[in-house]
Amino acid sequence: MRKYNVAVVGVGAVGCAMLRCLKQRNFPINKLSVFARSPRDIKVDLDTYHVEAISSENFEDIDIALFAGTEGEKGASALYARKFIEKGAVVVDNGSDFRLKEDVPLIIPEVNKDKISAHKGLIANPNCTTIQAVVALGGIYKNFGLEKVILTSLQATSGAGKEAEVSLWEETKEIVDKNKGVNYDQLDKRIDSGPIVFSHQIAFNVIPQIGSLQEENYTTEEWKVVREAHKIFGDSSIKITATCVRVPVFTSHSEAIYFRTQKKVTLSSLEEILKATPGVKYSPNHFPLPLDTEGKDEVFVGRLRKDPYEENSFWLWCVCDNLRKGAALNAVQIIENLIPHP
Amino acid sequence: MRKYNVAVVGVGAVGCAMLRCLKQRNFPINKLSVFARSPRDIKVDLDTYHVEAISSENFEDIDIALFAGTEGEKGASALYARKFIEKGAVVVDNGSDFRLKEDVPLIIPEVNKDKISAHKGLIANPNCTTIQAVVALGGIYKNFGLEKVILTSLQATSGAGKEAEVSLWEETKEIVDKNKGVNYDQLDKRIDSGPIVFSHQIAFNVIPQIGSLQEENYTTEEWKVVREAHKIFGDSSIKITATCVRVPVFTSHSEAIYFRTQKKVTLSSLEEILKATPGVKYSPNHFPLPLDTEGKDEVFVGRLRKDPYEENSFWLWCVCDNLRKGAALNAVQIIENLIPHP
Repeated sequence: MRKYNVAVVGVGAVGCAMLRCLKQRNFPINKLSVFARSPRDIKVDLDTYHVEAISSENFEDIDIALFAGTEGEKGASALYARKFIEKGAVVVDNGSDFRLKEDVPLIIPEVNKDKISAHKGLIANPNCTTIQAVVALGGIYKNFGLEKVILTSLQATSGAGKEAEVSLWEETKEIVDKNKGVNYDQLDKRIDSGPIVFSHQIAFNVIPQIGSLQEENYTTEEWKVVREAHKIFGDSSIKITATCVRVPVFTSHSEAIYFRTQKKVTLSSLEEILKATPGVKYSPNHFPLPLDTEGKDEVFVGRLRKDPYEENSFWLWCVCDNLRKGAALNAVQIIENLIPHP
Repeated sequence: MRKYNVAVVGVGAVGCAMLRCLKQRNFPINKLSVFARSPRDIKVDLDTYHVEAISSENFEDIDIALFAGTEGEKGASALYARKFIEKGAVVVDNGSDFRLKEDVPLIIPEVNKDKISAHKGLIANPNCTTIQAVVALGGIYKNFGLEKVILTSLQATSGAGKEAEVSLWEETKEIVDKNKGVNYDQLDKRIDSGPIVFSHQIAFNVIPQIGSLQEENYTTEEWKVVREAHKIFGDSSIKITATCVRVPVFTSHSEAIYFRTQKKVTLSSLEEILKATPGVKYSPNHFPLPLDTEGKDEVFVGRLRKDPYEENSFWLWCVCDNLRKGAALNAVQIIENLIPHP
C-alpha cells in the first residue's frame, strides 16, 4: 500500500487534534512534517513531534498538507497553501479563507464526498458549528428535504483556539483563588484583570457574539452556518438562520436545532433516519452532553421531538467534539477519501 | 398611608431576593414575618431577619403573604396558602402549583396587571423563563401580534434554588483544587463525586433538561414557557415552542428568541416598540450578558435582527436576573399593584 508524505501546518488546538487523528486512524504516512511559525518540540498524548519553522524551502515532496487554520483569523493557508499546491501537494484547509470559493470543494465526507474529486489542489474543511448541524440533518435533508432551520449554538471555548480554551481555565482559577475562605453569599465572581481572549469574561457567563458583526447584524459565525450549509447541501433554498453563543465549556459544541421538513414526516420515520445517518449517534432516551462527548468521533443527537403546534416541525439537540469531527477528524476523513481504499 | 403586615414564606434564593426587593422598594410594611420549615436567623445584605417555623398558629393578622416557592418542587403554598387566605391574607405564590388554575390570575404587571383584581385570595407569579420572554415580547405582541415563538434558554443554576447555585461553585472548586500544579493539557475536568443537585456535572458543561420529561418529550420547564405565556397573553393561538438548557452561570437567564409577528413590521418599528416596552432595556449596539445583569431590575434585550429569508421574522437576545424580575421583583410589583398608590 502506498504511503504518503503528510504535513500538518499549525499546532494549536486543531493542529494537535489532527496529529492525534492521523495516528489513531493509522493514516498511511511515509513522512510526517509539522510546521508552525516557530520551531520547537511539542507533545501530543505520548508522542513528541518536532515542529519546523514554515518557509517555502521545506514544501518539497509533500503529498498532502493539512492546515489547522483558526476560526476567524486569516490563516497560514492564505500565505502558504498556494505554494504547497504548486509543489504538488493537495491541501485541506480548516480555516475560513477559501470555503466559499467556487472552485474549492467544501466537504463533509458523510454528506458530499462525491464533490471531493472536483478539487484543484485545495479542499476546504467547514466550520465546526456547521459540520455538526449538517451531519445531524444530513439524512433528514436527503429523505425529506429541509424548508427551515433555526439553530442556537452553545459553543465551547476551544473553538476559538488553544489560548481561548486556556483563558476559561485561568479566569476560573482566578475566581476560585480570590474567594478562598469567602462565604458563598459574599463571593466575587468577576475577574479583576480584563478578559484574556474573549471580549468579556467567559467564566460563569455566556457571550452571544462569535466573530464580528456583519450584514443584517449576523456575526461571521452565524453567516458561516448559513452559507456553508447551503454550499455543502448544494441547496441555497433552505432557510437557515442561527444565533451563536459562547459558553464556559472547554470542548464540544451543543446546538438546539429547530427544523421544518419539506415532505410530510412522522416522528418515528425521523427516528429511523437518524439511527441510519452516517456519523450520527442517536439516542432516543438520553441527551448528549459536552463533557461526555469530548474525544469522541460522532455527532451525538438526542431530544428529538415534534412541535405540537406546527406540521413537520421538530427540535433536536446535537453535541459534538468541535476539535475532532468539528475540525481535525473531518479533515482526516477527507484525505482518507482522497487515497485508494485498502 | 396604610402599612401592611407582610409575610415571606421560604428563605432560599428567591425568598432572600424577596426580602431584598421589599426593602429596596420601600414597600409600606407594618410588620414583617419570615417563615420557613425551621426557625433561625438569616442575613440578607446588612440585615438580619428572624425566621419562624411555619405553623397555622402564626398566620393571624397577615395582609399579604409572598411564597418563594421552588421551581419544580411542590411548594409550601400547596400546604399553607389556603390557610393564609382563610385568615384574610392575599397570597402571591412563586411556585408552579397554582399557575394554570382558572381562578388564579398569573401576573406580570407590565403585561396584564388588569387581571390582578380578579383574584380570590391567590395570585401566581410566573416561571422565571416565562417572565423575561413575555416582558421582552410584550410590546411586540400588543402592537403586531405573534404568530410563532421559538425559544432556546440558557438558564442559570440559581433558577433551581440556592443549593443548585452553590453546587456549581463546589464543583468548580473541586476541579480547580484537584488540578493544582497540573499542566493544562493534563487537566481532569470532571468531579470525582457525583453531581450535587443536577442530574450531571454542571461545571464546564451544559444540560439540556430542566425539570422532568412530559408529554411530547417536552420538559416541565418547556411546557411552562408555552402554557404560562398563553395564559398571560390571554391568547393560546401563539405557536410557542422552547428548548430549555442549564448552563454554568450563577444568576441571570439568557434566551435566544426567534419570533414571527402577525402583522407586517419593519426592523425599525420593532426597535421603537422595544425602546418603549415597559420593563425592557433595549440596547441596539450592545448585547446583554448574565454577569452584567445580576442584581438589576430590567429585562435586557439586544441583538435584534431580522431573518433575511423570512417575512416578519426576527431574533432577539434577552437576559434577566432570574431571582429578581424572574421571581422576587415580579412578586413585589404584583403586591405594589394590590395596594392604593400613594
